[in-house]
Amino acid sequence: MSPLMPAAILLAVLSCSPPARGADTLHSWNSGPTRSAVIQFVRDVTTEGGPGFVPPSERIAVFSHDGTLFPEQPAPVELAFLMDRVKALASKHARWKTKEPFKSALSRDLTSLAKSGAPGILKLTSGAHAGMTTAEFDATVTAWIAKAKNPRLYRPYNQCALLPMLELLDFLHLSGFKTYILSRGDAAFLRPWAEKVYGVSPEQVIGSSVRTKYEMRKGISVLVRREEFDLMEDGPGRPPAIFRSTGRRPIAAFGNSDADLEMLQWVAAGEGRHLVLLVHHTNGGNEFAYDRKADFGRLDKALDAARKNGWTIADMTKDWNRFFPRTGK
Amino acid sequence: MSPLMPAAILLAVLSCSPPARGADTLHSWNSGPTRSAVIQFVRDVTTEGGPGFVPPSERIAVFSHDGTLFPEQPAPVELAFLMDRVKALASKHARWKTKEPFKSALSRDLTSLAKSGAPGILKLTSGAHAGMTTAEFDATVTAWIAKAKNPRLYRPYNQCALLPMLELLDFLHLSGFKTYILSRGDAAFLRPWAEKVYGVSPEQVIGSSVRTKYEMRKGISVLVRREEFDLMEDGPGRPPAIFRSTGRRPIAAFGNSDADLEMLQWVAAGEGRHLVLLVHHTNGGNEFAYDRKADFGRLDKALDAARKNGWTIADMTKDWNRFFPRTGK
Repeated sequence: MSPLMPAAILLAVLSCSPPARGADTLHSWNSGPTRSAVIQFVRDVTTEGGPGFVPPSERIAVFSHDGTLFPEQPAPVELAFLMDRVKALASKHARWKTKEPFKSALSRDLTSLAKSGAPGILKLTSGAHAGMTTAEFDATVTAWIAKAKNPRLYRPYNQCALLPMLELLDFLHLSGFKTYILSRGDAAFLRPWAEKVYGVSPEQVIGSSVRTKYEMRKGISVLVRREEFDLMEDGPGRPPAIFRSTGRRPIAAFGNSDADLEMLQWVAAGEGRHLVLLVHHTNGGNEFAYDRKADFGRLDKALDAARKNGWTIADMTKDWNRFFPRTGK
Repeated sequence: MSPLMPAAILLAVLSCSPPARGADTLHSWNSGPTRSAVIQFVRDVTTEGGPGFVPPSERIAVFSHDGTLFPEQPAPVELAFLMDRVKALASKHARWKTKEPFKSALSRDLTSLAKSGAPGILKLTSGAHAGMTTAEFDATVTAWIAKAKNPRLYRPYNQCALLPMLELLDFLHLSGFKTYILSRGDAAFLRPWAEKVYGVSPEQVIGSSVRTKYEMRKGISVLVRREEFDLMEDGPGRPPAIFRSTGRRPIAAFGNSDADLEMLQWVAAGEGRHLVLLVHHTNGGNEFAYDRKADFGRLDKALDAARKNGWTIADMTKDWNRFFPRTGK
């Protein structure tokens, strides 16, 4: 066998298969314009010599997390974690009873927590975990996500990722894309489980971040979580955060709320072929139905913009036939 | 042929070849303990079933840029760029004649610029380029790096990367590593050329960053550079910056100055097999010779720490036999 054979075979596999594999991967997507738009986009950017071809190194896609890859009702998963953590730690922090957003977390006042937004989430996590090493925080998140359940879906959080979106991630990975997940909360909350659930490595999670401090503890170098944090602002703050991490404009963006509007506009304004997709939560039977008036994940201006600009809309009821992986799988 | 063949061949190539290829890749490294330490480390972390094995997804390596991958004398490349830019733009900014660090940049006062450190670099680039879109800045950097030369090495900056380190990057890439470059300056300065020169994609450049603002210009979404910046502090600021970007502790770190000390300590404190290497500039004939008293890249405490802790030291004179690629190659 020629020593060049494996590379040649590999190249053949990589360059020929993505468009063909697409139809196989997107099981939970109904046939129709939405599924076709996704497949056509991938076919275009992966067809060498074609007018839409994009080299693999530039195939960058970003996904908003809450509401796009993962249910965000009755509360975003990071908030569920933080309500549990604040409760568990409350006996050591008497002031939390009267201090926001801790007070609302203790009373599980979701409307008030929704109003406190991403800064509220960051205040809760940085306040509750200051002084912990990053490794200790990591272990705390990992232990929690292995056990906690979404109270309305009756399923473990580690099996709550939306199946059609997992298929879409697989499809993009098979097609040479590098995918990023955008968290408005602390990236350190998503990173310990993003690889297992989404196949997205920790360094491809972008978001707010709790600052850390380099310290020696018992002669060992560690990073310790501080109370200060760097906030990724919603809306117009998202494109700068993506650019800061990646140094470029992605060619595909997936969102579900007004907080994603500017990110979608920015990706839509890129030169060359791009895909901009909005997930619309229309299925209260299988997941949740909400848009213009939701506490979490309000979708109002971005829905109008999507319709006006002809962006792709994934209507859960029309476009999806399964929502979650089988439990235990 | 079985449809599983290509994957099987690929797997064989990936899992067997790195240790064997190592010796082939590191041409410019002399035989001896330094070269052997690098090869042994890579062999250990890539040998499946061995005690030092690290899965590919966790093979993260970080390289300081100035002085480790690239000569930093008589001035770091970003400072050379900024001195040229400030000169070119000075007629529009009368105040720069009396305002630091612009004044020192105009008079090419390297000692003063060295003292202003990374904050000085960030002030220069954010001040000189505020209002530009990120795409315009990218084009400016790309045009400059294609023409400018290092005044003491008489070679174009785009051919100044240190050949032994390029070989080391290749070796690590072949061995399944994901490599990061650390820039104390604005990551946006390195990103436009990091892929071409180092094979490191823009999103794997970590550093300080000039903030950007999302704007619509002529109906198109763009990011515009602002005067504000987020500084990556030297020394103890580096591990938090790496953690913020990657979410984990790398298993290999390469530095050359006291600014890298804490990064090296942090990586050395990791569980499992790791490699910590210090580049020591000892060759004034081929490159530059400097350490404990240099304006740029002072190496004093980190040299003592490396010797005390048995870290690997690449002594340019002892360990390298070639320094740069052939010009024009």
